[in-house]
Amino acid sequence: MGTDKQKLREICRIAARVFFEKGYDGASMQDIAQAVGLTKAGLYHHVRSKDRLLYEIMNYGMDILRETVIDRVKAITEPREKLRQTIIGHINLVVHARDQEITVILHENRSLKGALRRKINARKKEYIRMLEDLIAQVQQREGGKPLLPPRLATFALLGIVNWLYQWYRPEGPIQEADLAHAYVDFFFRGLLGEAPKPVATSQPSVAS
Amino acid sequence: MGTDKQKLREICRIAARVFFEKGYDGASMQDIAQAVGLTKAGLYHHVRSKDRLLYEIMNYGMDILRETVIDRVKAITEPREKLRQTIIGHINLVVHARDQEITVILHENRSLKGALRRKINARKKEYIRMLEDLIAQVQQREGGKPLLPPRLATFALLGIVNWLYQWYRPEGPIQEADLAHAYVDFFFRGLLGEAPKPVATSQPSVAS
Repeated sequence: MGTDKQKLREICRIAARVFFEKGYDGASMQDIAQAVGLTKAGLYHHVRSKDRLLYEIMNYGMDILRETVIDRVKAITEPREKLRQTIIGHINLVVHARDQEITVILHENRSLKGALRRKINARKKEYIRMLEDLIAQVQQREGGKPLLPPRLATFALLGIVNWLYQWYRPEGPIQEADLAHAYVDFFFRGLLGEAPKPVATSQPSVAS
Repeated sequence: MGTDKQKLREICRIAARVFFEKGYDGASMQDIAQAVGLTKAGLYHHVRSKDRLLYEIMNYGMDILRETVIDRVKAITEPREKLRQTIIGHINLVVHARDQEITVILHENRSLKGALRRKINARKKEYIRMLEDLIAQVQQREGGKPLLPPRLATFALLGIVNWLYQWYRPEGPIQEADLAHAYVDFFFRGLLGEAPKPVATSQPSVAS
């Protein structure tokens, strides 16, 4: 990765925190330059407008999703295992504190307009289509009439996972591994109407 | 309802739209007074600060939830039917266009601080506890070890339902009744590990 790209990512991380605290409209480029430790002119050297900065943050958010979720399941061919790992990876991304501001901003895309908005939406749609295809493949393997259209299943899954930032705290009583395990099983039961698996005694229990 | 309360609700609805468009930090009390058709002094007669206005909007959002969801299921004693009707009511609330700005703002509560924030959070927690209790009751009736802790089930449900504003459009190809039906069944399968019910031919199909 080039130094300029590294610097841009650093700016994105810090700017995301400033937007998160002050709101997109409430934060000025001066606030962001100050937080990054640059002059305003120095900041404008890396990113040419506040609009563009918001776009870069969202684009970075989608890069993180690709690098930490999508790329990691690429080699898995079995649809069910691939979907399972995708869910676990996405949960990990959302509850991972370091970049939480970025993933939150990703869903507040009302402030982004025009072509930049369309670019981000195209990247989001690509991920949604990947999930939809994967879910359809899992349903096909099971045979029979699907219990839930893949599109509705996809958005149910995104709702469950993306909502985590509203309530889940990694330092709280529920371990992330237990959370991911519980939600993967819940999702597959809802999707496929499977009878519950017998609970192995070695499996960690989930405290409520 | 008193005239003052009616006027406050009208202000809340309009202000929610202004905050939604300009962001909380980007909208001034002057912008809001103008949108409502009041002088700034007139607006301050009804609500004494921008903070307080945001609180009133969120409080109104919780009033709507109580009036259109919670109160309507109060008389239902059978836990499963009560939970089913609660889900349908909450979906209806979220996809109902008229007050969508209010329900969206309800979840962007970072701008609210101190005592006002605690008051709104207490109302949210009350609803969460109601859902949790209801889910636990449904699980108890089914017997056996619960497949998912009620707390995780509650937040999965809230995620599915509250995420709808991100993607669902009532004027799109999926009918609201089909959506609600599909998600209720999905949730109960995930919660209870039920085998799928045979699909009755009279049941409306869900287009994906």
